[in-house]
Amino acid sequence: MKIHAVDTYDIRFPTSLSLDGSDAMNPDPDYSAAYVVLRTGTEHEGHGFTFTIGRGNEVCRSAIEALTPLVIGQDISNLGAFAKRITHDSQTRWLGPEKGVIHLAAAAIINAAWDLAAKVAGKPVWQFLSDMSPDAIVDLVDWRYITDALTPAEAYEMLLEAVPGRDERTQHLLRHGYPAYTTSPGWLGYDDAKLTRLVREAVSDGYTQIKLKVGADLADDHRRFALARAVAGPGIRIAADANQRWDTAEAVEWMTALATYDPWWIEEPTSPDDVLGHADIRQALTTAGPGGGPIRVATGEHVANRVMFKQLLQANAVDFVQLDACRVGGVNENVAILLLAAKFGRPVCPHAGGVGLCELVQHLSMFDYVAVSGDLTDRTIEYVDHLHEHFVDPVIIDRAAYRAPRVPGFSARMKPESLVRYAFPEGEAWQQQP
Amino acid sequence: MKIHAVDTYDIRFPTSLSLDGSDAMNPDPDYSAAYVVLRTGTEHEGHGFTFTIGRGNEVCRSAIEALTPLVIGQDISNLGAFAKRITHDSQTRWLGPEKGVIHLAAAAIINAAWDLAAKVAGKPVWQFLSDMSPDAIVDLVDWRYITDALTPAEAYEMLLEAVPGRDERTQHLLRHGYPAYTTSPGWLGYDDAKLTRLVREAVSDGYTQIKLKVGADLADDHRRFALARAVAGPGIRIAADANQRWDTAEAVEWMTALATYDPWWIEEPTSPDDVLGHADIRQALTTAGPGGGPIRVATGEHVANRVMFKQLLQANAVDFVQLDACRVGGVNENVAILLLAAKFGRPVCPHAGGVGLCELVQHLSMFDYVAVSGDLTDRTIEYVDHLHEHFVDPVIIDRAAYRAPRVPGFSARMKPESLVRYAFPEGEAWQQQP
Repeated sequence: MKIHAVDTYDIRFPTSLSLDGSDAMNPDPDYSAAYVVLRTGTEHEGHGFTFTIGRGNEVCRSAIEALTPLVIGQDISNLGAFAKRITHDSQTRWLGPEKGVIHLAAAAIINAAWDLAAKVAGKPVWQFLSDMSPDAIVDLVDWRYITDALTPAEAYEMLLEAVPGRDERTQHLLRHGYPAYTTSPGWLGYDDAKLTRLVREAVSDGYTQIKLKVGADLADDHRRFALARAVAGPGIRIAADANQRWDTAEAVEWMTALATYDPWWIEEPTSPDDVLGHADIRQALTTAGPGGGPIRVATGEHVANRVMFKQLLQANAVDFVQLDACRVGGVNENVAILLLAAKFGRPVCPHAGGVGLCELVQHLSMFDYVAVSGDLTDRTIEYVDHLHEHFVDPVIIDRAAYRAPRVPGFSARMKPESLVRYAFPEGEAWQQQP
Repeated sequence: MKIHAVDTYDIRFPTSLSLDGSDAMNPDPDYSAAYVVLRTGTEHEGHGFTFTIGRGNEVCRSAIEALTPLVIGQDISNLGAFAKRITHDSQTRWLGPEKGVIHLAAAAIINAAWDLAAKVAGKPVWQFLSDMSPDAIVDLVDWRYITDALTPAEAYEMLLEAVPGRDERTQHLLRHGYPAYTTSPGWLGYDDAKLTRLVREAVSDGYTQIKLKVGADLADDHRRFALARAVAGPGIRIAADANQRWDTAEAVEWMTALATYDPWWIEEPTSPDDVLGHADIRQALTTAGPGGGPIRVATGEHVANRVMFKQLLQANAVDFVQLDACRVGGVNENVAILLLAAKFGRPVCPHAGGVGLCELVQHLSMFDYVAVSGDLTDRTIEYVDHLHEHFVDPVIIDRAAYRAPRVPGFSARMKPESLVRYAFPEGEAWQQQP
């Protein structure tokens, strides 16, 4: 199966109008996708995208187009080689390397190739991955720069050890789904009444973890956290997310001040590039929680690549690994990150939300459970109830769990009418804006 | 002085035809610039660019255009605020943050604003910067994410301490220039005869340091290093540059094997993101040199931003800081990096070459000498003898030193005829390619 043509789209949703997605660093995002379709001249197509929050989405589209010559004519039977061909190209690699716009573009294309390959195989991506042999999984990974933390041979042994339990865990997933937590109540732009109502709904929907955005104003955070804790009760985990707002000392002070509300984790306390800063923050918060317990540290949605995740693990800088389906180099690099997290014994709790991130990332966590970590302890996928209506095969949340997808592919395909209506700037949704 | 309009250009030179610039990771670069002109409606214009190696240069141009709405109508009297307005914009920040294409684009624009401001002031940028008061210099920097390593107050004290020697050092620069080393002999694509000839020329031109590309083939590296050392003699520093070719263990093995030729430093031994990997390599090479001395570690041309440089310094991972004029967020972020390097007592030896990087970066090193570190010990700027003929105010090398620029601005302006001839793909230089 070869790729004959590549189509690209600039899709944007005017979410800034409702302050959905507003946080301490991103006051007015317009959730967007630089969207790509790989065409094969057959009935099979591969759909993929990367997520942005508005302006600059066209730059990601331009980057996808810059990578197109590396894709046309390529076969998708070896997805390890396919991914490396894209990320190793010397001229476009200069623009990263393996970070920022060019890596977001690589993610869109590589994810689209996975959508295509899984459709050809007639399986959802999580199952397509979980059915691979340990050596085939090892071959997906670009091992460059991570062998000091994990060798291919070690990864092979870990994967081999997980093979006997694969069937049982697959059955568990098909019956019970994969645990979710919800960020929907916690956006900074929501007033207290909306916050309270949404927390109450989340608890009654069965969620055992919610998340609040923090970091803009400490008095507001006190009030909001107190409200959320009062409504949720003591048994619900409430995570906090600062979206990179602080320097290290400020992160420690601010979270120590909020410790009384028993925050489960602090997410993105500082720059995603600051491995040593996260390690310092984590160390300082080890006994900051109520009763001398830890306030845990999480990051990942802006962590650029496997080399950065490797260091966050090596430096003992994070309790939770929040991989993102579209920030790093697609499925292949996320397989590397799942393997690294398993090696270091850290739970992966993916970043999701935006547009389509829930749809993609559920496949990665389910693969992790079936074939890599084999564990659900403290694992949960972020869930945000936005924009799923634009997808042909949207996520389904059932009793606070992601239901295991059954449809072949990566659940990545947007409805054709959404691709028309939200095309930027020519789509009807944008022509109607004042 | 306000910016009225922004023009962008995609400029590429077909350098891959001669293998100029070939190394272990970049076999066939076409040196390119995403070039920007800030227009003011007066006779003053600001010229700037970022450097790429070919494909994807159009993506950087697209990113510059995405940032244009943040620039039009802006005043350049406060360059600290000007730079933060660009790098703090939430929607485009998502594409990095502060890394990759969007940061390369920020560099082009911010550097162009410095070119403009220095022209208005009637000074070359190095002098324009060196004439600023310590508090004005502190205000240029975005302190977010670096205060755990250096506070504005500490930076102010350092700068204040350097004020009394400014005049004397300025006079020294005007008389003697700033030391250079040359990479011209060492490109991997050159044969032994060309290597030998160029090393001999470099030594006879007065260079006391040269650099060889390594990392593609160990036997070749042995032969080339032996040749270079034989021609240069023992008194010349020969640096090695692996351009990110290795994992950490391989870096240590390879450089230990080449230790007999007394390499001065190993540059980019592994991923520029791998702070902890560089620290491990440096530690392992501490006594690997002849006589039990160190093989030093250098990196920087692909280090994404001040947060990464901060950690390289905190982790004791580098002996030399190789900042790049266009990789990070322009002059402002490079001022932060110079201050961090001075705080940690590490010499800055900038990356240059490409197209126009020598022209820009000389200003930063000269400012460092006059107003920041006040020191030339082990400091030297890379020099590569390519493509200077396209600049209106090209660098001048005089007895292996950069002569201090006298012309107002950032030496950034390309000749109008070059902007026409090398415009991609429509320029004559590209239309004539087979």
